[in-house]
Amino acid sequence: MYLMRIGAPGAEKPVARVDDTSYVDLSDLVDDFDEEFFAGGGIERIAPLVAAGTPTPFAGERIGAPIARPHQILCIGLNYRDHAEETGQAVPSEPILFTKSPNTLIGPNDDVRIPRGSTKPDWEVELGIVIGRRTSYLDDVAEARDAIAGYTVVNDVSERAFQMERSGQWSKGKSAETFNPAGPWLVTPDEIGDVLALDMWLDLNGTRRQSGNTRTMVFDPYFMVHYLSQFMVLEPGDLINTGTPPGVGMGFTPQVWLRPGDVMELGIQGLGSQRQNVIAPR
Amino acid sequence: MYLMRIGAPGAEKPVARVDDTSYVDLSDLVDDFDEEFFAGGGIERIAPLVAAGTPTPFAGERIGAPIARPHQILCIGLNYRDHAEETGQAVPSEPILFTKSPNTLIGPNDDVRIPRGSTKPDWEVELGIVIGRRTSYLDDVAEARDAIAGYTVVNDVSERAFQMERSGQWSKGKSAETFNPAGPWLVTPDEIGDVLALDMWLDLNGTRRQSGNTRTMVFDPYFMVHYLSQFMVLEPGDLINTGTPPGVGMGFTPQVWLRPGDVMELGIQGLGSQRQNVIAPR
Repeated sequence: MYLMRIGAPGAEKPVARVDDTSYVDLSDLVDDFDEEFFAGGGIERIAPLVAAGTPTPFAGERIGAPIARPHQILCIGLNYRDHAEETGQAVPSEPILFTKSPNTLIGPNDDVRIPRGSTKPDWEVELGIVIGRRTSYLDDVAEARDAIAGYTVVNDVSERAFQMERSGQWSKGKSAETFNPAGPWLVTPDEIGDVLALDMWLDLNGTRRQSGNTRTMVFDPYFMVHYLSQFMVLEPGDLINTGTPPGVGMGFTPQVWLRPGDVMELGIQGLGSQRQNVIAPR
Repeated sequence: MYLMRIGAPGAEKPVARVDDTSYVDLSDLVDDFDEEFFAGGGIERIAPLVAAGTPTPFAGERIGAPIARPHQILCIGLNYRDHAEETGQAVPSEPILFTKSPNTLIGPNDDVRIPRGSTKPDWEVELGIVIGRRTSYLDDVAEARDAIAGYTVVNDVSERAFQMERSGQWSKGKSAETFNPAGPWLVTPDEIGDVLALDMWLDLNGTRRQSGNTRTMVFDPYFMVHYLSQFMVLEPGDLINTGTPPGVGMGFTPQVWLRPGDVMELGIQGLGSQRQNVIAPR
Protein backbone atom coordinates (compact mmCIF):
# COMPACT_ATOMS: atom_id res chain seq x y z
CA MET A 1 0.00 0.00 0.00
CA TYR A 2 0.92 3.63 -0.55
CA LEU A 3 -0.53 5.61 2.34
CA MET A 4 -0.95 9.36 2.05
CA ARG A 5 -2.45 12.26 3.96
CA ILE A 6 -4.03 14.93 1.76
CA GLY A 7 -5.65 18.27 2.51
CA ALA A 8 -4.86 21.48 4.36
CA PRO A 9 -2.12 21.51 7.04
CA GLY A 10 -3.53 20.16 10.28
CA ALA A 11 -6.64 18.84 8.53
CA GLU A 12 -5.18 16.13 6.30
CA LYS A 13 -7.31 13.08 5.61
CA PRO A 14 -5.83 9.57 5.43
CA VAL A 15 -6.05 7.87 2.04
CA ALA A 16 -4.42 5.05 0.12
CA ARG A 17 -3.02 5.93 -3.28
CA VAL A 18 -4.20 3.68 -6.12
CA ASP A 19 -2.16 5.34 -8.88
CA ASP A 20 -1.18 8.83 -10.04
CA THR A 21 -4.79 9.76 -10.63
CA SER A 22 -6.83 8.22 -7.81
CA TYR A 23 -6.98 7.16 -4.17
CA VAL A 24 -9.20 5.26 -1.74
CA ASP A 25 -10.52 7.56 0.99
CA LEU A 26 -9.92 6.05 4.44
CA SER A 27 -11.19 8.94 6.55
CA ASP A 28 -14.32 7.04 7.62
CA LEU A 29 -12.18 4.14 8.85
CA VAL A 30 -9.06 5.78 10.24
CA ASP A 31 -8.61 8.91 12.37
CA ASP A 32 -5.05 9.43 11.27
CA PHE A 33 -1.84 7.52 10.53
CA ASP A 34 -0.66 8.05 14.08
CA GLU A 35 0.65 6.10 17.06
CA GLU A 36 -2.78 4.64 17.84
CA PHE A 37 -3.30 3.53 14.23
CA PHE A 38 0.00 1.67 13.98
CA ALA A 39 -0.25 0.24 17.53
CA GLY A 40 -3.71 -1.11 16.81
CA GLY A 41 -2.71 -3.10 13.73
CA GLY A 42 -4.17 -0.45 11.45
CA ILE A 43 -2.17 -1.47 8.41
CA GLU A 44 -3.41 -5.07 8.52
CA ARG A 45 -6.96 -3.85 9.16
CA ILE A 46 -7.18 -1.49 6.19
CA ALA A 47 -5.41 -3.72 3.64
CA PRO A 48 -8.54 -5.60 2.47
CA LEU A 49 -10.60 -2.39 2.57
CA VAL A 50 -8.11 -0.60 0.36
CA ALA A 51 -8.11 -3.51 -2.10
CA ALA A 52 -11.93 -3.41 -2.27
CA GLY A 53 -12.33 0.38 -2.07
CA THR A 54 -13.81 2.69 -4.69
CA PRO A 55 -11.21 5.01 -6.19
CA THR A 56 -11.70 8.78 -5.96
CA PRO A 57 -9.84 11.02 -8.42
CA PHE A 58 -7.18 13.34 -7.02
CA ALA A 59 -8.33 16.94 -7.32
CA GLY A 60 -5.09 18.81 -6.75
CA GLU A 61 -5.17 18.49 -2.96
CA ARG A 62 -2.06 19.44 -1.02
CA ILE A 63 -0.08 16.41 0.11
CA GLY A 64 0.83 16.30 3.81
CA ALA A 65 3.47 14.18 5.50
CA PRO A 66 2.29 10.56 5.27
CA ILE A 67 2.20 10.17 9.06
CA ALA A 68 0.95 12.36 11.90
CA ARG A 69 3.51 14.14 14.09
CA PRO A 70 5.45 11.27 15.64
CA HIS A 71 6.58 10.75 19.21
CA GLN A 72 10.16 11.02 17.98
CA ILE A 73 12.16 11.77 14.86
CA LEU A 74 15.41 9.88 15.31
CA CYS A 75 18.28 10.50 12.92
CA ILE A 76 21.39 8.57 12.05
CA GLY A 77 24.53 10.50 11.17
CA LEU A 78 27.23 9.63 8.65
CA ASN A 79 25.49 6.44 7.58
CA TYR A 80 26.74 6.36 3.96
CA ARG A 81 30.39 5.52 3.46
CA ASP A 82 30.79 8.01 0.61
CA HIS A 83 29.06 10.82 2.59
CA ALA A 84 31.32 10.33 5.61
CA GLU A 85 34.27 10.75 3.27
CA GLU A 86 32.98 14.00 1.76
CA THR A 87 32.57 15.54 5.22
CA GLY A 88 36.08 14.47 6.19
CA GLN A 89 34.79 12.34 9.07
CA ALA A 90 35.49 8.68 9.83
CA VAL A 91 32.88 6.01 9.14
CA PRO A 92 31.38 5.45 12.62
CA SER A 93 31.91 2.14 14.40
CA GLU A 94 28.35 2.32 15.77
CA PRO A 95 25.34 4.32 14.55
CA ILE A 96 25.51 7.99 15.51
CA LEU A 97 22.13 8.94 16.92
CA PHE A 98 20.70 12.41 17.16
CA THR A 99 17.17 13.75 17.14
CA LYS A 100 15.04 16.31 15.41
CA SER A 101 12.08 18.16 16.88
CA PRO A 102 8.93 16.23 15.79
CA ASN A 103 7.16 19.48 14.88
CA THR A 104 9.59 19.94 11.97
CA LEU A 105 7.48 17.46 9.98
CA ILE A 106 5.83 18.97 6.88
CA GLY A 107 4.46 17.77 3.54
CA PRO A 108 6.77 16.77 0.69
CA ASN A 109 6.04 19.86 -1.39
CA ASP A 110 5.65 22.45 1.36
CA ASP A 111 7.99 25.43 1.59
CA VAL A 112 11.23 25.06 3.54
CA ARG A 113 11.91 28.20 5.55
CA ILE A 114 15.44 29.34 6.32
CA PRO A 115 15.70 30.07 10.06
CA ARG A 116 16.67 33.48 11.39
CA GLY A 117 20.40 33.91 11.75
CA SER A 118 21.12 30.99 9.43
CA THR A 119 24.30 31.11 7.35
CA LYS A 120 24.68 27.45 6.31
CA PRO A 121 21.33 25.83 5.48
CA ASP A 122 21.80 22.50 3.71
CA TRP A 123 19.85 19.53 2.30
CA GLU A 124 19.93 15.75 2.85
CA VAL A 125 17.81 13.23 0.93
CA GLU A 126 17.19 10.22 3.19
CA LEU A 127 15.30 6.98 3.48
CA GLY A 128 12.82 7.29 6.37
CA ILE A 129 11.71 4.26 8.38
CA VAL A 130 8.31 4.36 10.10
CA ILE A 131 8.00 2.11 13.14
CA GLY A 132 4.92 -0.12 13.19
CA ARG A 133 4.77 -1.37 16.77
CA ARG A 134 6.12 -0.67 20.24
CA THR A 135 9.68 -1.99 20.01
CA SER A 136 12.16 -2.67 22.79
CA TYR A 137 15.12 -5.03 23.18
CA LEU A 138 14.69 -6.93 19.94
CA ASP A 139 16.51 -10.25 20.29
CA ASP A 140 17.98 -10.23 16.81
CA VAL A 141 18.20 -8.21 13.63
CA ALA A 142 15.68 -10.39 11.78
CA GLU A 143 12.95 -9.38 14.25
CA ALA A 144 13.30 -5.78 13.11
CA ARG A 145 11.46 -6.59 9.87
CA ASP A 146 8.21 -6.99 11.76
CA ALA A 147 8.74 -3.69 13.56
CA ILE A 148 8.83 -1.61 10.36
CA ALA A 149 5.51 -0.26 9.04
CA GLY A 150 7.05 1.16 5.90
CA TYR A 151 9.38 3.63 4.26
CA THR A 152 9.18 7.20 3.03
CA VAL A 153 11.36 9.90 1.51
CA VAL A 154 12.61 12.59 3.88
CA ASN A 155 14.66 15.74 3.42
CA ASP A 156 16.69 16.07 6.63
CA VAL A 157 17.18 19.82 6.24
CA SER A 158 20.11 21.01 8.36
CA GLU A 159 21.71 24.25 9.46
CA ARG A 160 25.42 23.41 9.63
CA ALA A 161 26.51 26.40 11.70
CA PHE A 162 23.79 25.69 14.29
CA GLN A 163 24.67 21.99 14.12
CA MET A 164 28.42 22.19 14.54
CA GLU A 165 29.56 25.66 15.56
CA ARG A 166 27.16 26.47 18.42
CA SER A 167 28.45 24.48 21.38
CA GLY A 168 27.99 20.81 20.61
CA GLN A 169 25.23 18.27 19.87
CA TRP A 170 23.62 18.22 16.43
CA SER A 171 19.91 18.60 17.35
CA LYS A 172 20.34 22.37 17.51
CA GLY A 173 20.89 22.52 13.75
CA LYS A 174 18.19 20.04 12.82
CA SER A 175 15.07 21.29 14.55
CA ALA A 176 13.94 24.53 12.89
CA GLU A 177 10.35 24.65 11.68
CA THR A 178 9.81 23.07 8.21
CA PHE A 179 13.10 21.15 8.47
CA ASN A 180 11.64 17.70 7.84
CA PRO A 181 9.64 17.33 4.61
CA ALA A 182 8.36 13.75 4.37
CA GLY A 183 6.41 11.79 1.79
CA PRO A 184 4.62 11.77 -0.56
CA TRP A 185 3.82 8.21 0.55
CA LEU A 186 4.36 5.74 3.33
CA VAL A 187 5.17 2.65 1.28
CA THR A 188 4.65 -0.73 2.96
CA PRO A 189 7.60 -3.13 2.68
CA ASP A 190 5.70 -5.59 0.43
CA GLU A 191 5.68 -2.94 -2.32
CA ILE A 192 9.47 -2.58 -2.28
CA GLY A 193 11.72 -5.18 -3.87
CA ASP A 194 14.97 -4.69 -2.00
CA VAL A 195 15.18 -1.71 0.34
CA LEU A 196 18.98 -1.96 0.10
CA ALA A 197 19.04 -1.32 -3.65
CA LEU A 198 17.15 1.95 -4.09
CA ASP A 199 18.52 4.87 -6.07
CA MET A 200 18.17 8.25 -4.40
CA TRP A 201 18.81 11.75 -5.68
CA LEU A 202 18.47 15.44 -4.96
CA ASP A 203 18.52 18.32 -7.46
CA LEU A 204 19.05 21.95 -6.48
CA ASN A 205 17.62 24.36 -9.06
CA GLY A 206 17.71 21.60 -11.65
CA THR A 207 21.33 20.59 -11.02
CA ARG A 208 21.94 17.09 -9.68
CA ARG A 209 23.63 17.48 -6.28
CA GLN A 210 23.10 14.16 -4.54
CA SER A 211 23.05 10.75 -6.09
CA GLY A 212 23.39 7.55 -4.21
CA ASN A 213 21.91 4.19 -3.51
CA THR A 214 20.80 2.62 -0.26
CA ARG A 215 23.34 -0.15 -0.88
CA THR A 216 26.16 2.10 0.39
CA MET A 217 24.54 2.45 3.83
CA VAL A 218 26.90 1.59 6.66
CA PHE A 219 24.11 0.29 8.93
CA ASP A 220 20.99 -1.04 7.20
CA PRO A 221 17.40 -0.44 8.42
CA TYR A 222 17.08 -3.79 10.20
CA PHE A 223 20.39 -3.40 11.98
CA MET A 224 19.36 0.13 12.96
CA VAL A 225 15.96 -0.73 14.42
CA HIS A 226 17.47 -3.63 16.38
CA TYR A 227 20.29 -1.38 17.57
CA LEU A 228 18.09 1.54 18.66
CA SER A 229 15.74 -0.85 20.49
CA GLN A 230 18.60 -1.62 22.90
CA PHE A 231 18.79 2.02 24.01
CA MET A 232 15.17 3.17 24.08
CA VAL A 233 11.60 2.10 23.44
CA LEU A 234 10.52 2.93 19.88
CA GLU A 235 6.87 3.93 19.65
CA PRO A 236 4.49 3.07 16.78
CA GLY A 237 4.68 5.86 14.22
CA ASP A 238 8.19 6.98 15.19
CA LEU A 239 10.27 8.14 12.23
CA ILE A 240 13.93 7.25 11.71
CA ASN A 241 15.93 9.26 9.17
CA THR A 242 18.66 6.86 8.14
CA GLY A 243 21.37 9.19 6.85
CA THR A 244 22.26 10.76 3.55
CA PRO A 245 24.44 9.85 0.55
CA PRO A 246 27.13 12.19 -0.87
CA GLY A 247 26.42 15.59 -2.34
CA VAL A 248 25.27 17.81 0.54
CA GLY A 249 26.11 21.49 0.28
CA MET A 250 28.71 21.23 3.03
CA GLY A 251 30.69 18.76 0.90
CA PHE A 252 31.29 20.99 -2.12
CA THR A 253 34.31 23.24 -2.69
CA PRO A 254 33.33 25.98 -2.30
CA GLN A 255 30.44 24.97 -0.06
CA VAL A 256 26.90 25.59 -1.36
CA TRP A 257 24.14 26.80 0.98
CA LEU A 258 20.41 27.13 0.41
CA ARG A 259 19.05 30.57 -0.45
CA PRO A 260 15.53 31.97 -0.68
CA GLY A 261 14.18 31.19 -4.15
CA ASP A 262 16.03 27.89 -4.44
CA VAL A 263 14.10 24.78 -5.46
CA MET A 264 14.94 21.34 -4.09
CA GLU A 265 13.69 18.24 -5.90
CA LEU A 266 14.48 14.85 -4.43
CA GLY A 267 13.31 11.28 -4.44
CA ILE A 268 13.97 7.62 -3.88
CA GLN A 269 13.27 4.85 -6.37
CA GLY A 270 9.79 3.45 -5.72
CA LEU A 271 9.06 5.88 -2.88
CA GLY A 272 8.13 8.96 -4.92
CA SER A 273 9.56 12.44 -5.08
CA GLN A 274 9.35 15.84 -3.40
CA ARG A 275 9.71 19.47 -4.46
CA GLN A 276 10.29 22.33 -2.01
CA ASN A 277 10.65 26.05 -2.51
CA VAL A 278 13.14 27.62 -0.13
CA ILE A 279 11.82 30.79 1.48
CA ALA A 280 13.27 33.61 3.59
CA PRO A 281 13.19 33.73 7.40
CA ARG A 282 10.01 35.09 8.94
CA MET B 1 -1.09 26.21 42.02
CA TYR B 2 0.45 22.79 42.49
CA LEU B 3 -0.80 20.57 39.68
CA MET B 4 -0.56 16.80 39.98
CA ARG B 5 -1.65 13.68 38.14
CA ILE B 6 -2.63 10.79 40.41
CA GLY B 7 -3.70 7.21 39.73
CA ALA B 8 -2.46 4.18 37.81
CA PRO B 9 0.09 4.60 34.98
CA GLY B 10 -1.70 5.69 31.84
CA ALA B 11 -4.90 6.46 33.76
CA GLU B 12 -3.81 9.39 35.92
CA LYS B 13 -6.38 12.05 36.75
CA PRO B 14 -5.51 15.75 36.86
CA VAL B 15 -5.83 17.40 40.26
CA ALA B 16 -4.60 20.48 42.10
CA ARG B 17 -2.89 19.87 45.44
CA VAL B 18 -4.29 21.90 48.32
CA ASP B 19 -1.86 20.65 50.97
CA ASP B 20 -0.22 17.39 52.07
CA THR B 21 -3.59 15.83 52.84
CA SER B 22 -6.01 16.99 50.13
CA TYR B 23 -6.54 17.98 46.52
CA VAL B 24 -9.16 19.46 44.21
CA ASP B 25 -10.21 16.96 41.56
CA LEU B 26 -10.08 18.52 38.08
CA SER B 27 -10.96 15.45 36.04
CA ASP B 28 -14.41 16.80 35.14
CA LEU B 29 -12.86 20.02 33.82
CA VAL B 30 -9.59 18.92 32.26
CA ASP B 31 -8.73 15.89 30.08
CA ASP B 32 -5.08 16.00 31.00
CA PHE B 33 -2.21 18.43 31.56
CA ASP B 34 -1.15 18.08 27.94
CA GLU B 35 -0.38 20.21 24.91
CA GLU B 36 -4.03 21.08 24.34
CA PHE B 37 -4.53 22.10 27.98
CA PHE B 38 -1.59 24.49 28.05
CA ALA B 39 -2.26 25.82 24.54
CA GLY B 40 -5.86 26.59 25.44
CA GLY B 41 -5.04 28.73 28.46
CA GLY B 42 -5.90 25.88 30.80
CA ILE B 43 -3.95 27.24 33.75
CA GLU B 44 -5.77 30.57 33.70
CA ARG B 45 -9.10 28.77 33.25
CA ILE B 46 -8.75 26.43 36.21
CA ALA B 47 -7.26 28.93 38.68
CA PRO B 48 -10.60 30.25 40.03
CA LEU B 49 -12.08 26.74 40.02
CA VAL B 50 -9.21 25.41 42.10
CA ALA B 51 -9.58 28.29 44.57
CA ALA B 52 -13.31 27.57 44.92
CA GLY B 53 -13.05 23.76 44.74
CA THR B 54 -13.98 21.24 47.42
CA PRO B 55 -10.94 19.40 48.78
CA THR B 56 -10.80 15.60 48.56
CA PRO B 57 -8.45 13.72 50.90
CA PHE B 58 -5.52 11.88 49.33
CA ALA B 59 -6.02 8.13 49.71
CA GLY B 60 -2.54 6.82 48.95
CA GLU B 61 -2.87 7.09 45.17
CA ARG B 62 0.23 6.70 43.04
CA ILE B 63 1.62 10.01 41.83
CA GLY B 64 2.29 10.26 38.09
CA ALA B 65 4.43 12.78 36.26
CA PRO B 66 2.66 16.15 36.58
CA ILE B 67 2.30 16.50 32.79
CA ALA B 68 1.30 14.13 30.02
CA ARG B 69 4.00 12.79 27.70
CA PRO B 70 5.31 15.94 26.04
CA HIS B 71 6.15 16.65 22.41
CA GLN B 72 9.79 16.98 23.46
CA ILE B 73 12.06 16.59 26.46
CA LEU B 74 14.91 19.01 25.84
CA CYS B 75 17.97 18.89 28.07
CA ILE B 76 20.74 21.33 28.77
CA GLY B 77 24.22 19.97 29.47
CA LEU B 78 26.86 21.30 31.87
CA ASN B 79 24.67 24.16 33.05
CA TYR B 80 26.07 24.47 36.59
CA ARG B 81 29.56 25.93 36.91
CA ASP B 82 30.50 23.55 39.72
CA HIS B 83 29.18 20.47 37.82
CA ALA B 84 31.16 21.33 34.69
CA GLU B 85 34.25 21.44 36.86
CA GLU B 86 33.63 18.02 38.43
CA THR B 87 33.30 16.42 34.98
CA GLY B 88 36.51 18.08 33.84
CA GLN B 89 34.73 19.93 31.03
CA ALA B 90 34.75 23.64 30.25
CA VAL B 91 31.76 25.83 31.08
CA PRO B 92 30.02 26.11 27.71
CA SER B 93 29.88 29.45 25.91
CA GLU B 94 26.34 28.65 24.72
CA PRO B 95 23.78 26.18 26.08
CA ILE B 96 24.52 22.58 25.11
CA LEU B 97 21.28 21.07 23.87
CA PHE B 98 20.45 17.41 23.69
CA THR B 99 17.19 15.48 23.89
CA LYS B 100 15.63 12.61 25.73
CA SER B 101 12.96 10.26 24.42
CA PRO B 102 9.60 11.64 25.67
CA ASN B 103 8.46 8.14 26.68
CA THR B 104 11.09 8.12 29.45
CA LEU B 105 8.69 10.21 31.56
CA ILE B 106 7.49 8.46 34.75
CA GLY B 107 6.12 9.43 38.15
CA PRO B 108 8.37 10.82 40.89
CA ASN B 109 8.30 7.65 42.99
CA ASP B 110 8.20 5.01 40.24
CA ASP B 111 11.00 2.47 39.88
CA VAL B 112 14.02 3.39 37.76
CA ARG B 113 15.11 0.41 35.70
CA ILE B 114 18.75 -0.11 34.73
CA PRO B 115 18.92 -0.81 30.99
CA ARG B 116 20.39 -4.01 29.59
CA GLY B 117 24.12 -3.80 29.02
CA SER B 118 24.45 -0.79 31.31
CA THR B 119 27.70 -0.34 33.21
CA LYS B 120 27.51 3.32 34.24
CA PRO B 121 23.98 4.35 35.27
CA ASP B 122 23.97 7.72 37.02
CA TRP B 123 21.63 10.32 38.54
CA GLU B 124 21.03 14.05 38.01
CA VAL B 125 18.63 16.18 40.05
CA GLU B 126 17.38 19.03 37.85
CA LEU B 127 14.96 21.90 37.67
CA GLY B 128 12.41 21.15 34.92
CA ILE B 129 10.68 23.95 32.99
CA VAL B 130 7.27 23.27 31.45
CA ILE B 131 6.41 25.42 28.44
CA GLY B 132 3.00 27.09 28.57
CA ARG B 133 2.46 28.30 25.02
CA ARG B 134 3.71 27.81 21.48
CA THR B 135 6.99 29.72 21.52
CA SER B 136 9.16 30.79 18.61
CA TYR B 137 11.67 33.59 18.08
CA LEU B 138 11.09 35.44 21.34
CA ASP B 139 12.30 39.00 20.92
CA ASP B 140 13.93 39.26 24.31
CA VAL B 141 14.67 37.30 27.46
CA ALA B 142 11.92 39.05 29.46
CA GLU B 143 9.28 37.58 27.12
CA ALA B 144 10.29 34.10 28.23
CA ARG B 145 8.52 34.59 31.57
CA ASP B 146 5.16 34.43 29.86
CA ALA B 147 6.13 31.25 28.01
CA ILE B 148 6.74 29.24 31.19
CA ALA B 149 3.77 27.35 32.70
CA GLY B 150 5.71 26.24 35.74
CA TYR B 151 8.51 24.21 37.24
CA THR B 152 8.99 20.66 38.46
CA VAL B 153 11.68 18.37 39.85
CA VAL B 154 13.24 15.91 37.39
CA ASN B 155 15.82 13.17 37.72
CA ASP B 156 17.69 13.16 34.41
CA VAL B 157 18.84 9.55 34.76
CA SER B 158 21.81 8.88 32.48
CA GLU B 159 23.89 5.94 31.26
CA ARG B 160 27.37 7.41 30.92
CA ALA B 161 28.85 4.63 28.78
CA PHE B 162 25.91 4.86 26.34
CA GLN B 163 26.14 8.66 26.48
CA MET B 164 29.84 9.10 25.86
CA GLU B 165 31.51 5.87 24.76
CA ARG B 166 29.14 4.64 22.04
CA SER B 167 29.90 6.82 19.02
CA GLY B 168 28.87 10.35 19.82
CA GLN B 169 25.77 12.39 20.75
CA TRP B 170 24.36 12.18 24.24
CA SER B 171 20.72 11.17 23.53
CA LYS B 172 21.77 7.52 23.32
CA GLY B 173 22.55 7.48 27.05
CA LYS B 174 19.52 9.49 28.13
CA SER B 175 16.56 7.71 26.56
CA ALA B 176 16.10 4.33 28.27
CA GLU B 177 12.64 3.60 29.68
CA THR B 178 12.04 5.10 33.19
CA PHE B 179 14.94 7.54 32.74
CA ASN B 180 12.93 10.71 33.48
CA PRO B 181 11.09 10.73 36.81
CA ALA B 182 9.22 14.06 37.13
CA GLY B 183 7.13 15.65 39.84
CA PRO B 184 5.48 15.38 42.27
CA TRP B 185 4.03 18.75 41.21
CA LEU B 186 3.98 21.25 38.42
CA VAL B 187 4.36 24.47 40.43
CA THR B 188 3.20 27.68 38.81
CA PRO B 189 5.70 30.57 38.94
CA ASP B 190 3.55 32.67 41.30
CA GLU B 191 4.12 30.07 44.05
CA ILE B 192 7.91 30.39 43.78
CA GLY B 193 9.75 33.33 45.27
CA ASP B 194 12.94 33.38 43.22
CA VAL B 195 13.52 30.47 40.85
CA LEU B 196 17.22 31.38 40.90
CA ALA B 197 17.60 30.75 44.63
CA LEU B 198 16.31 27.21 45.16
CA ASP B 199 18.28 24.58 47.05
CA MET B 200 18.43 21.17 45.39
CA TRP B 201 19.72 17.84 46.63
CA LEU B 202 19.96 14.14 45.89
CA ASP B 203 20.64 11.33 48.38
CA LEU B 204 21.72 7.84 47.37
CA ASN B 205 20.87 5.24 50.01
CA GLY B 206 20.64 7.98 52.59
CA THR B 207 23.99 9.59 51.76
CA ARG B 208 23.91 13.12 50.40
CA ARG B 209 25.45 13.02 46.93
CA GLN B 210 24.27 16.20 45.22
CA SER B 211 23.73 19.55 46.80
CA GLY B 212 23.42 22.75 44.91
CA ASN B 213 21.35 25.81 44.32
CA THR B 214 19.84 27.16 41.13
CA ARG B 215 21.88 30.33 41.64
CA THR B 216 24.98 28.59 40.20
CA MET B 217 23.25 27.94 36.86
CA VAL B 218 25.28 29.19 33.90
CA PHE B 219 22.18 29.98 31.79
CA ASP B 220 18.98 30.75 33.69
CA PRO B 221 15.48 29.55 32.66
CA TYR B 222 14.51 32.80 30.93
CA PHE B 223 17.74 32.95 28.96
CA MET B 224 17.27 29.30 28.03
CA VAL B 225 13.70 29.56 26.75
CA HIS B 226 14.59 32.66 24.73
CA TYR B 227 17.68 30.92 23.37
CA LEU B 228 15.94 27.67 22.39
CA SER B 229 13.14 29.60 20.70
CA GLN B 230 15.68 30.85 18.15
CA PHE B 231 16.43 27.30 17.00
CA MET B 232 13.06 25.54 17.14
CA VAL B 233 9.39 25.99 17.95
CA LEU B 234 8.67 25.01 21.57
CA GLU B 235 5.25 23.41 22.00
CA PRO B 236 2.93 23.85 25.00
CA GLY B 237 3.73 21.15 27.55
CA ASP B 238 7.32 20.65 26.37
CA LEU B 239 9.73 19.86 29.21
CA ILE B 240 13.19 21.37 29.53
CA ASN B 241 15.65 19.73 31.93
CA THR B 242 17.99 22.57 32.85
CA GLY B 243 21.11 20.74 33.97
CA THR B 244 22.45 19.37 37.23
CA PRO B 245 24.59 20.66 40.11
CA PRO B 246 27.71 18.81 41.37
CA GLY B 247 27.68 15.33 42.85
CA VAL B 248 26.77 12.96 40.03
CA GLY B 249 28.24 9.45 40.23
CA MET B 250 30.60 10.16 37.34
CA GLY B 251 32.23 12.94 39.37
CA PHE B 252 33.37 10.83 42.34
CA THR B 253 36.76 9.14 42.75
CA PRO B 254 36.23 6.28 42.38
CA GLN B 255 33.10 6.77 40.31
CA VAL B 256 29.81 5.57 41.79
CA TRP B 257 27.17 3.89 39.61
CA LEU B 258 23.58 2.93 40.38
CA ARG B 259 22.88 -0.70 41.29
CA PRO B 260 19.66 -2.66 41.72
CA GLY B 261 18.39 -2.11 45.24
CA ASP B 262 19.66 1.46 45.45
CA VAL B 263 17.28 4.20 46.59
CA MET B 264 17.45 7.73 45.19
CA GLU B 265 15.78 10.59 47.07
CA LEU B 266 15.91 14.04 45.58
CA GLY B 267 14.17 17.36 45.67
CA ILE B 268 14.16 21.07 45.07
CA GLN B 269 13.13 23.69 47.62
CA GLY B 270 9.43 24.50 47.18
CA LEU B 271 8.96 21.96 44.37
CA GLY B 272 8.68 18.77 46.44
CA SER B 273 10.70 15.59 46.52
CA GLN B 274 10.98 12.19 44.82
CA ARG B 275 12.01 8.68 45.85
CA GLN B 276 12.92 5.95 43.37
CA ASN B 277 13.95 2.34 43.83
CA VAL B 278 16.54 1.21 41.31
CA ILE B 279 15.69 -2.15 39.76
CA ALA B 280 17.50 -4.66 37.56
CA PRO B 281 17.25 -4.82 33.76
CA ARG B 282 14.28 -6.71 32.39
